[in-house]
Amino acid sequence: MGARRFHTWKLYGYWRSSCTWRVRIALAAKGIKYEYVPIDISKGDQHDSEHENRNRMRQVPTLEVYDEEAKTKRLLSQSLAIIEFLEETFPNSGCSMLPKDPIERMRVRQISEIINSGIQPLQNLSVLKAISSNGQMDSKDWAHKAISKGLEAVEVLALQILEELKEDRGNDSVYLAGTREPTMADACLIPQLYNARRYDVDLATTCPHLLEVEKRCNKLEWIASCHANLQSDAQV
Amino acid sequence: MGARRFHTWKLYGYWRSSCTWRVRIALAAKGIKYEYVPIDISKGDQHDSEHENRNRMRQVPTLEVYDEEAKTKRLLSQSLAIIEFLEETFPNSGCSMLPKDPIERMRVRQISEIINSGIQPLQNLSVLKAISSNGQMDSKDWAHKAISKGLEAVEVLALQILEELKEDRGNDSVYLAGTREPTMADACLIPQLYNARRYDVDLATTCPHLLEVEKRCNKLEWIASCHANLQSDAQV
Repeated sequence: MGARRFHTWKLYGYWRSSCTWRVRIALAAKGIKYEYVPIDISKGDQHDSEHENRNRMRQVPTLEVYDEEAKTKRLLSQSLAIIEFLEETFPNSGCSMLPKDPIERMRVRQISEIINSGIQPLQNLSVLKAISSNGQMDSKDWAHKAISKGLEAVEVLALQILEELKEDRGNDSVYLAGTREPTMADACLIPQLYNARRYDVDLATTCPHLLEVEKRCNKLEWIASCHANLQSDAQV
Repeated sequence: MGARRFHTWKLYGYWRSSCTWRVRIALAAKGIKYEYVPIDISKGDQHDSEHENRNRMRQVPTLEVYDEEAKTKRLLSQSLAIIEFLEETFPNSGCSMLPKDPIERMRVRQISEIINSGIQPLQNLSVLKAISSNGQMDSKDWAHKAISKGLEAVEVLALQILEELKEDRGNDSVYLAGTREPTMADACLIPQLYNARRYDVDLATTCPHLLEVEKRCNKLEWIASCHANLQSDAQV
């Protein structure tokens, strides 16, 4: 249904943007082919009027798609809103980004939002610049602290979920929110761990379980291929 | 269905917390009765171990509910995740926080996330404290700028949606995301406008259309009654 109504996908993004990375994972989960258009954040290309017309917040990602029903192009932004849209439009394709049970869905969204609104914005470039304009606090220390606090909360929550599920299931193939398939929560976790490493967070101490989940995710070729360093605009 | 499986609601929150306010609106939309337990953020009560056990991020709101099926209490956190849960659990009660059409749902979530992850975290107390520890940049200026930029983006997006819908509908009773009923996007907007006023954002210049939407929302008694200043723990 979705494939008939929505087609010709184009992703405006940046290799190292964690929000773009989340959407790459969701597109891969659904097996959606798309054209990738890099927007070079390191050069400030997101501020060009052309991109501003696409995304008024001057952010990436923006996902463009043709809506056959309305005979018009649609511009989608905000990574979690995009992932929800993809899941609702292609509920039966590939891997589900949201499970069926209401409590499981709740947990997936809860963890996703801890990362999306509770960690990622605090370590974003604009905040770090504002903080580093002072002499007293180092922006790297700030990012380090914000990421550690958030990941520690996700670690505890994920372990509580596992504990609850222990009687029902084995530990095999259990992803971040206690699901049997990776979800939106895993799509948020993977880029956040990458960022944590950039800010020297000691992940083995802070969140050993999350490292296990990451390892499990990266065994799936379609997730591993979404890694920032493997994108066409990567500068590594 | 939801009423049989989930009951005995308790909201841990704070009168002026915008995330708590969003959840108050969603609970009111669904006509759910709940016990309100104030957590005094101004005194740092969110850091108490009792609250930390409820919410590892040491934030409000946390919504507690008894799950009859699993015979256990559930702790829900992250405002948008809670609102999605309430909408999915009570799809046919009261006002819908999400419309039915996939593009309309996309727009509601897009606008909600611009506010939830693109504005609110940047003007949160922890960020303002870190910024004000320097002598060069005033945290009030920073909050003012972050809120203005975000609301300006929401204004433009909301006007674009209205323009698209003009042929289909009149302008009467059109809420933030172009819907006929208030949604999660309106639940995010109202507390954000309250915060904008605290930081002296010139709303009449930045977002006149959003002020119209706010006025329309507040004509609904169930939304107006959720105002921060009307809560039992309000200090005004």
